[in-house]
Amino acid sequence: MLLSGGLDSATVLAMASKDEYSVTALSFRYGQKHSIELDKAAATAAAWNVRDHVVLQLDPEPFRASSLTGEGEVQNGNIQRTEIPSTYVPARNTVFLSLALALAESREADAVFIGVNALDYSGYPDCRPAFIKAFRNLAAVATKSAVQGNPVRIEAPLLHMTKAEIIRAGLDLGVDYSLTLSCYRPDSQGRSCGTCDSCLLRLKGFRENGETDPATYV
Amino acid sequence: MLLSGGLDSATVLAMASKDEYSVTALSFRYGQKHSIELDKAAATAAAWNVRDHVVLQLDPEPFRASSLTGEGEVQNGNIQRTEIPSTYVPARNTVFLSLALALAESREADAVFIGVNALDYSGYPDCRPAFIKAFRNLAAVATKSAVQGNPVRIEAPLLHMTKAEIIRAGLDLGVDYSLTLSCYRPDSQGRSCGTCDSCLLRLKGFRENGETDPATYV
Repeated sequence: MLLSGGLDSATVLAMASKDEYSVTALSFRYGQKHSIELDKAAATAAAWNVRDHVVLQLDPEPFRASSLTGEGEVQNGNIQRTEIPSTYVPARNTVFLSLALALAESREADAVFIGVNALDYSGYPDCRPAFIKAFRNLAAVATKSAVQGNPVRIEAPLLHMTKAEIIRAGLDLGVDYSLTLSCYRPDSQGRSCGTCDSCLLRLKGFRENGETDPATYV
Repeated sequence: MLLSGGLDSATVLAMASKDEYSVTALSFRYGQKHSIELDKAAATAAAWNVRDHVVLQLDPEPFRASSLTGEGEVQNGNIQRTEIPSTYVPARNTVFLSLALALAESREADAVFIGVNALDYSGYPDCRPAFIKAFRNLAAVATKSAVQGNPVRIEAPLLHMTKAEIIRAGLDLGVDYSLTLSCYRPDSQGRSCGTCDSCLLRLKGFRENGETDPATYV
């Protein structure tokens, strides 16, 4: 399971745990400025008692053309924006799913879980249903296990959910969202900015549920 | 361009150079026992005067279920074999193409080149036309540049060529195959075993051309 430290993947972990999967969590250090998210991922992994939490170091070179990793500042949020924001990271979910597929095949896992969703999101192309469909089609031909009739399944249970629905599902499953961090530009103490795309979407989701976000904001 | 140090990718580099591409070569250190191939990749990259040669270090953990990277010996060759051999590396070309796609988008490259072929090969699922087709379909929806109408192209010019045809094309373009290493289990001096799948296919290709392989064999 891809585990970022954010709200979505924490919810997916709760869902899979409820379905009695034995979960290996997978996180990446890829040059993200908000690498403090990895501490959050570790806390959520521990809270759900995962079987293993693998953190892979990736050379940041392929990912530099993004304000999350390279030069340039993260923009202030605008969740009505239609263009793809500067926080887009080149081919990130393609790379993450590929490495998850390799690890899953090496460890004979049944499925890879990813927390993408495409309703209340930043407009990244690799969060959309068309992307997940194309990756599933790839996984169906790419591996030895697939050729032998036992492909690794690609599960994206949040794909068609709103942020409010995701949070509601997580709260019902007992997710502790105080352990998660969604912000693209947290301060050095891990406090969220409250104004980037990711914070705006998160705050909207809690508000629509009539709940208070337990994250700490500056 | 994915550059492994082997015969196929050296030929692709010659083809792209003839077509006046300005090439960034991309190689990986992923725990392969025959990492001496990276010295060969560097020699071929230098011979063709590439713009840059990027070598990315990958944590070997996702790739362990293979005799090329983990426990177990590389089998003696059998190019009539129908099952997928132990040298198969989980999702390797999916991961390599994904990282190449990210790098290509970050650097605004037009295309990613890969030297896969599926006639005289080891039977790996991620060398077949169906795999390349699926990855192209993925690349068409996965990135910002694709969504904006300018996808990175995935080029696999050797896909339908025999090993003999590949070698003939490379010799005609001036490839120095003495700089390449195909063997899955070279000795510490970089000499090829002459008996693994990869050596058998290479030797057959030279033989069918009436040429002598300039590689050094034990």
